[in-house]
Amino acid sequence: MTSISAWAAPAAGQPLQRYSFDPGPLGAQEVEIAVEHCGLCHSDLSMLDDEWGQSRYPLVPGHEAVGRVVALGEEALGLTLGQRVGLGWTASSCMHCRWCLGGDQQLCPKAQGTIVGRHGAFAERVRAHWAWVVPLPEALDPASAGPLLCGGITVFTPLHDLALPPTAHVGVVGIGGLGHLALQFASAWGCEVTAFSSSASKHAEALRLGAHRVVDSTDPAAMAAIAGTLDLIIYTANAALDWEALMATLAPRGRLHVVGAVLQPIAVSAFTLIGGFKSVSGSPTGSRGDIEAMLDFTARHRVEALVERFPMSGVNEALAHLRAGKARYRVVLDADFD
Amino acid sequence: MTSISAWAAPAAGQPLQRYSFDPGPLGAQEVEIAVEHCGLCHSDLSMLDDEWGQSRYPLVPGHEAVGRVVALGEEALGLTLGQRVGLGWTASSCMHCRWCLGGDQQLCPKAQGTIVGRHGAFAERVRAHWAWVVPLPEALDPASAGPLLCGGITVFTPLHDLALPPTAHVGVVGIGGLGHLALQFASAWGCEVTAFSSSASKHAEALRLGAHRVVDSTDPAAMAAIAGTLDLIIYTANAALDWEALMATLAPRGRLHVVGAVLQPIAVSAFTLIGGFKSVSGSPTGSRGDIEAMLDFTARHRVEALVERFPMSGVNEALAHLRAGKARYRVVLDADFD
Repeated sequence: MTSISAWAAPAAGQPLQRYSFDPGPLGAQEVEIAVEHCGLCHSDLSMLDDEWGQSRYPLVPGHEAVGRVVALGEEALGLTLGQRVGLGWTASSCMHCRWCLGGDQQLCPKAQGTIVGRHGAFAERVRAHWAWVVPLPEALDPASAGPLLCGGITVFTPLHDLALPPTAHVGVVGIGGLGHLALQFASAWGCEVTAFSSSASKHAEALRLGAHRVVDSTDPAAMAAIAGTLDLIIYTANAALDWEALMATLAPRGRLHVVGAVLQPIAVSAFTLIGGFKSVSGSPTGSRGDIEAMLDFTARHRVEALVERFPMSGVNEALAHLRAGKARYRVVLDADFD
Repeated sequence: MTSISAWAAPAAGQPLQRYSFDPGPLGAQEVEIAVEHCGLCHSDLSMLDDEWGQSRYPLVPGHEAVGRVVALGEEALGLTLGQRVGLGWTASSCMHCRWCLGGDQQLCPKAQGTIVGRHGAFAERVRAHWAWVVPLPEALDPASAGPLLCGGITVFTPLHDLALPPTAHVGVVGIGGLGHLALQFASAWGCEVTAFSSSASKHAEALRLGAHRVVDSTDPAAMAAIAGTLDLIIYTANAALDWEALMATLAPRGRLHVVGAVLQPIAVSAFTLIGGFKSVSGSPTGSRGDIEAMLDFTARHRVEALVERFPMSGVNEALAHLRAGKARYRVVLDADFD
């Protein structure tokens, strides 16, 4: 087995450098993918900076990979050599716990993140358990499909897993890498869609992406005007808002669903929850079946990640672009190892 | 129409006094009930003390009434004179909004509480809209049924409305007026039941009421031992706990459901919600249909409020008993107007 070329951070906060490692023998259940493209997700930054206290260095980021199967472990199921596939946040799960057998592999207590204690896809090749290597529908453009595999499934889950009816009124907070996909999914789902944004520059784009209206979440009058109307808010931002103001926009039985890794506690009053039968919840990405359903829905409804492409050798420039809040809306790196 | 004798607080924090008022003509949709028994709920204290800023004085508490129909408005449906009925937290709703027509009358924006801007059931007679006056099954003891109509339905709703399967593992926080009913309901529902209590004096009683185990919520080791096991926690207490410690006892997809009017904000981290697909939610009492379902279930499973009875003329002693935390587990007042 030949070594793998990659980009890795030697320690927290340091620029990525070229890095080569020996992956060892391929596991019986594993698949090796030759990476063609890989999305850059905010979670890569969090892991690079060790914000969540679980990073190991050298750290190879990248967990929105698209590529072709180049090696199959002897017990890997359902894939063929040369097949185009995607890999997202999760790279393996135990496959025999209550959650794995119940179709909720993403909730497996032993699930491993693609970049958590493993080497990710800012690399020539990346490995994962076969169950997490998902065939990519022909109709999807491989160069922009990467962001669907983490960002996409993350915002698809609240619609799909919560069985939201298309009659629902949905709000999306944060019009970025996740939010711009959430607007498209919620619109294609048949819902009435409200984009929350305090950035005037994003209003027109939010409408183009499927929002029926844009509400400035920092404007109390605008927020009061939609009080009691939303059934679901998908919260994709990483910064905290005024939680009670947001909860007030929910209809009875409404739910504030958090998918953005906000570091501040989410604090709401018992009265707010009790009086309106309201919920605050969150979810991670999705199961293997959820990802397949999302890719199928995406292809049928022409949902598309809006991406800016960088060569993988420009990964540090790409990281700086994302850190500066300039990404519109997702960055994809094209593999250019030689 | 003759005047109604009652017990009322002239102002916040003052003892109840005898009070007489003219109820005016009976509304076309209204029913008048001759009160036989009325439960005393923690919400009566909160309203007497104007904790929620919505009290009007003189305030006649009492919203867990059992009695007989003595007058029917000309448009009141489904009831007969002399019928034994119950009345809980809600006394009226608009009957034509989305929520009323959808079977969620308790979520009607115009729903009126029995003691919110109305005179409650610490009185000879009490009035309510016909939809909220619920026939009492013959099998229920009228003297102990009152607490079912607010406390009972409040803890029944998380099981019933959330369609909890009997395979679920349920925790109950707070073994008091609500909690002692929650233990019985969850056990009769077929669930595995964990009582959380820091009061050693309640351990044996919690087991008798249906708990399979009792966990001291203030003991970190005991809490760690049940990490990741519960599907639903019904939080009936009025004081805050360590929310993160409680959330950690939930299994993936678990829900912390608050029905106790905790005044402190409920603060949880986004990571906790996201990682385990967890929820924090709350609910008020229940709809007319929910109350009927609860009474039917209660009678079939011999769920019973454990009550201490006081004559209504001893209402101030009863209030002091409840305030002192001595109620085991619900106080009922027997009407003794002359």
